Amino acid sequence: MSRIDRLARPHHDGSRLYVDNQAPQLGETVTVRVRVPHAAKIAEVHVRQLWDAEPTFAAAAVERHTDVEDWWAAQVTCHNPVTPYRFLLQGVDGEYLWLNGDGLHRRDVPDHSDFRLLTYQAPPAWATESIVYQVFPDRFARAKGAPPVAEIAPEWATPAAWDDDVDTESPAVVSTQLFGGDLDGIREHLDHLQRLGATVLYLTPFFPARSNHRYDAATFDAVDPLLGGDDALDRLVAEAHRRGLRVLGDLTTNHTGDEHEWFRAARANAEAPERDFYFFHDDGDYDSWLGVHSLPKLDHSSPLLRDALFDRADAPVRRWLSGPNALDGWRVDVANMTGRHNAQDINHAVADHMRATLEDLDADKLLVGEHVHDHSADAQGSGWHGVMNYSGFTRPLWTWLRDKEFAPNFLGAPLAVPRLGGESVAETIDEFGSLDPWRSRVHSFTLTGSHDTTRVRTLVGDDPAMVRVAAALLLTMPGIPMITYGDEIGMEGAFGEDGRRPMPWDENCWDTAIFTTYQELIAARRELEPLRYGGLRWVSATTDSLTFVREDRSGVVLVHCARAAHEAVTVPAVHLPALDQGRLVAASAARIEPCGSSVTLQADGPGYAVWSSPTAQVSR
Amino acid sequence: MSRIDRLARPHHDGSRLYVDNQAPQLGETVTVRVRVPHAAKIAEVHVRQLWDAEPTFAAAAVERHTDVEDWWAAQVTCHNPVTPYRFLLQGVDGEYLWLNGDGLHRRDVPDHSDFRLLTYQAPPAWATESIVYQVFPDRFARAKGAPPVAEIAPEWATPAAWDDDVDTESPAVVSTQLFGGDLDGIREHLDHLQRLGATVLYLTPFFPARSNHRYDAATFDAVDPLLGGDDALDRLVAEAHRRGLRVLGDLTTNHTGDEHEWFRAARANAEAPERDFYFFHDDGDYDSWLGVHSLPKLDHSSPLLRDALFDRADAPVRRWLSGPNALDGWRVDVANMTGRHNAQDINHAVADHMRATLEDLDADKLLVGEHVHDHSADAQGSGWHGVMNYSGFTRPLWTWLRDKEFAPNFLGAPLAVPRLGGESVAETIDEFGSLDPWRSRVHSFTLTGSHDTTRVRTLVGDDPAMVRVAAALLLTMPGIPMITYGDEIGMEGAFGEDGRRPMPWDENCWDTAIFTTYQELIAARRELEPLRYGGLRWVSATTDSLTFVREDRSGVVLVHCARAAHEAVTVPAVHLPALDQGRLVAASAARIEPCGSSVTLQADGPGYAVWSSPTAQVSR
Repeated sequence: MSRIDRLARPHHDGSRLYVDNQAPQLGETVTVRVRVPHAAKIAEVHVRQLWDAEPTFAAAAVERHTDVEDWWAAQVTCHNPVTPYRFLLQGVDGEYLWLNGDGLHRRDVPDHSDFRLLTYQAPPAWATESIVYQVFPDRFARAKGAPPVAEIAPEWATPAAWDDDVDTESPAVVSTQLFGGDLDGIREHLDHLQRLGATVLYLTPFFPARSNHRYDAATFDAVDPLLGGDDALDRLVAEAHRRGLRVLGDLTTNHTGDEHEWFRAARANAEAPERDFYFFHDDGDYDSWLGVHSLPKLDHSSPLLRDALFDRADAPVRRWLSGPNALDGWRVDVANMTGRHNAQDINHAVADHMRATLEDLDADKLLVGEHVHDHSADAQGSGWHGVMNYSGFTRPLWTWLRDKEFAPNFLGAPLAVPRLGGESVAETIDEFGSLDPWRSRVHSFTLTGSHDTTRVRTLVGDDPAMVRVAAALLLTMPGIPMITYGDEIGMEGAFGEDGRRPMPWDENCWDTAIFTTYQELIAARRELEPLRYGGLRWVSATTDSLTFVREDRSGVVLVHCARAAHEAVTVPAVHLPALDQGRLVAASAARIEPCGSSVTLQADGPGYAVWSSPTAQVSR
Repeated sequence: MSRIDRLARPHHDGSRLYVDNQAPQLGETVTVRVRVPHAAKIAEVHVRQLWDAEPTFAAAAVERHTDVEDWWAAQVTCHNPVTPYRFLLQGVDGEYLWLNGDGLHRRDVPDHSDFRLLTYQAPPAWATESIVYQVFPDRFARAKGAPPVAEIAPEWATPAAWDDDVDTESPAVVSTQLFGGDLDGIREHLDHLQRLGATVLYLTPFFPARSNHRYDAATFDAVDPLLGGDDALDRLVAEAHRRGLRVLGDLTTNHTGDEHEWFRAARANAEAPERDFYFFHDDGDYDSWLGVHSLPKLDHSSPLLRDALFDRADAPVRRWLSGPNALDGWRVDVANMTGRHNAQDINHAVADHMRATLEDLDADKLLVGEHVHDHSADAQGSGWHGVMNYSGFTRPLWTWLRDKEFAPNFLGAPLAVPRLGGESVAETIDEFGSLDPWRSRVHSFTLTGSHDTTRVRTLVGDDPAMVRVAAALLLTMPGIPMITYGDEIGMEGAFGEDGRRPMPWDENCWDTAIFTTYQELIAARRELEPLRYGGLRWVSATTDSLTFVREDRSGVVLVHCARAAHEAVTVPAVHLPALDQGRLVAASAARIEPCGSSVTLQADGPGYAVWSSPTAQVSR
């Protein structure tokens, strides 16, 4: 179908506009709705669901009829914790069509892109409301009056001054260069998060270690004294909570550092209980993360490890989430490899156990797993509430916005990320998105990059206008936007370590246009419910432009993004109710112009426009 | 790409032409090869594999160069029992391409269509060599001298004479009409299987029950006396083995009949150990297969059930596979629902346990699960060796060959199977095929129908020529061909029960042209290794024709099928080595004509042509 036809297609997604119960119980029946434009010429609609893995069908009925479309409703019973369903449509001319999360299909399709209802306990309500701000503690801020780094630096560290360059050339220094950022420094700059509009502070690890990134924890039982120790975390969380901000920690469940107290005990004595926590060979050697010997891999089949990590009262997964100034959840490092080792694959059991531990403490904690690649096998609704959505957001975004000359590499891939047109980008987002239950998708972090990747400013070839396009997509698409500290002021970085630069607090070093864009778009997201709870329908995808609506009972938000000047795209307004009663919420270099029966979308260069119409999208 | 370009695409599949070790051990490194036609203009090839769920890359190198193509080779290490891999190719112009089981992609793709290596114990070697013949015991043959059915019919049965019509009108009679076929009758007709060329006799259940289909077993410990009892099975298997035929049984692991000895004990006494085998409610009611009360569902979380079914020496899974005249494996009824019940999903554990039980007895037993829909989640190489491949073979075939007027329904779907062109059929076969490891795919039954569906003769509108096209696809595609008794003589049936007609042994009632076609194509499959062990490359797919090659080191088989007369399709011969040195193996109404640099494919109506060239497809 041509791009103009996109709006004339039948549509369903997992959002509350189409699914009347977002947190059903096992056994409950849920009404699901499909909107079917008359232009699609559909005569019958059925829903097919799995029931103990056997398909069953139920007829849908027209519940509401408008001049433009019919809303069909059908019942799906949550017979299992995950209930896959999709729609079978018959055209008035006998055409046979499946509608699943990846769109319309004129032939049989497998089940992997089915929509899915989940009866697992719902994630915390605050999660969907969040704007996450990722802080790499060594590089964000130093507390006022902190002593010179050289005075506190331990033997492994290479002290650096705040305005030194990050050393990415000397292999020995990359992970030991210490700028001395600390938790009190972060606390002193919480104003910055609030000024930006962020609502969640996500800290990369704060455990003592022998590196600036601290993913090689030496213990899970204390905050690194270099960061201010346990008290500094207490003060930081208390102040964040006082301001209404949430705080997430970062826990590595796949491995520890080789100086971890568990590993030291295990290495020192083959009879130590901790020996069981790792994969030791007969010769005393052991397995480690991707062969990096300083990161010994944990063996989650050990009941003792489960107890030490999750179960006992002072186990790290519990203790940091308990008490008066408790964290609000965990981001889990290397979640994809956790519990997977040769013939052992207990990843889902570990994730389920960690989820149950959080739920046992408090239903209000969030659990997000790191997955840098296709995460769908591990994001089916149990275990992690969501993941870091690199595959379904970051990479498609990169393929659209990367500079023609700067070809970023991505985490070990031998070829650079390709540069593709908007049609491919929309297809990729849809395909990966279709593999996740809607709940997992909207509880996953969307990100334009992280401390592990190229920064967006460098990715787009140092073009501030393109950074702002990336921000527009980040803040208007489904998912929890995660901003890596410094992206909002236009910080650069060609790859992960290069991007871990100390945050410059002299605002003269900031790109204030970028900062203002983030502020404006975050404000829009926080104001407009459809951007947080709405469904996603594509309006148009061309080489240089992407246009979609986020819709909810509370209204419609139309988003147009362009990576370059492009000819006007005109779409029929009939499927975008009462757009002309709305207003432009934010825009730069791009235009949305409702005019009578059509809407014109244009851009003079890289830009974005966000239009909001409060007209209710009632479903009945 | 146009259809002519298909042969110019890079290609890999899991067959031995491309994967040098078909049964690697955990930890072993396997060489995988991609053939890359020069026309594809590829500069670099890398292989991406998962390693504890983390992608790693390795460069491929050109191993062999011909005038037409390069063969690239790379190493994949089986770090896990299932190792997904795919290829990343860079074009000479910088183009970025993924090659996975579903073809070439110019953007990122999820992992579900990755190729996969398996380190599980290999299925029995005889499986890939097999032609399976499915017999419904009540309807295949009565032993000479058997008493009139009325004399032996139990109280539940409605006796019928062999030449009576099947009663599909009276709900009470459909499953009780008893024609009195028996195991000695089958034994007396093993000649028929051998004349046809079948190598495996698959018997639908032979356990005592209260229906003609016997899926409501009253015990798993005896052969129904109506069929001749245990001794008749013994005689049948002995005679089959004497003739070099294998025999498969059919076991229902999802449920028993409500007259099963276990269920009677459980129902009679709430304290009986067997109570634990089922899902009883507090009020004495119980859960059953799709709500059919006579088929109470088994609870595989019961250790007692596992012992009774699998583990003890006389457990049915073991006992019928042991001893001098043992079965050669099981087809498992309702495999998809087994071990799945509300919040319980131990399906894979049950399948793995059953597989381990078979392997414990003898490495030479086959285990095939019934899956009528997308089976991919349950066909990843552990558990069932293969499944009944309805989704990846039967349904696509039906959409191509179904009569314009007769629109078959398929197992409860509310809309009839659509009628589609060959392009969609090839796409569907590829998409579903890509979700299975090659080993699972080639150990799954391909079928044009079964005792549960419309028969192919009726499906195609009673056109014998179309039946023969279906047979050609069945016997030349990857997978173990399964023929439902009677299909080979053109038996009709609009739906499952209607097709369960008594086999007419008067050959005047046979369509001998159909029988001859089956014989000829089975002989070709048994003679030509590429049809059993070869890869699958599409040559062309048009609305009315499907053309593909099966290739192996032993040669190339080119297959052209047409559902109607069509204009000549001409493809370049350069990618089909030395086809002109080959010969036509079988043909009807279709032509394959190698002529110089091209091959012409034609048909005057529904037909097929199979061409074999012995030229070695050496990979180095």
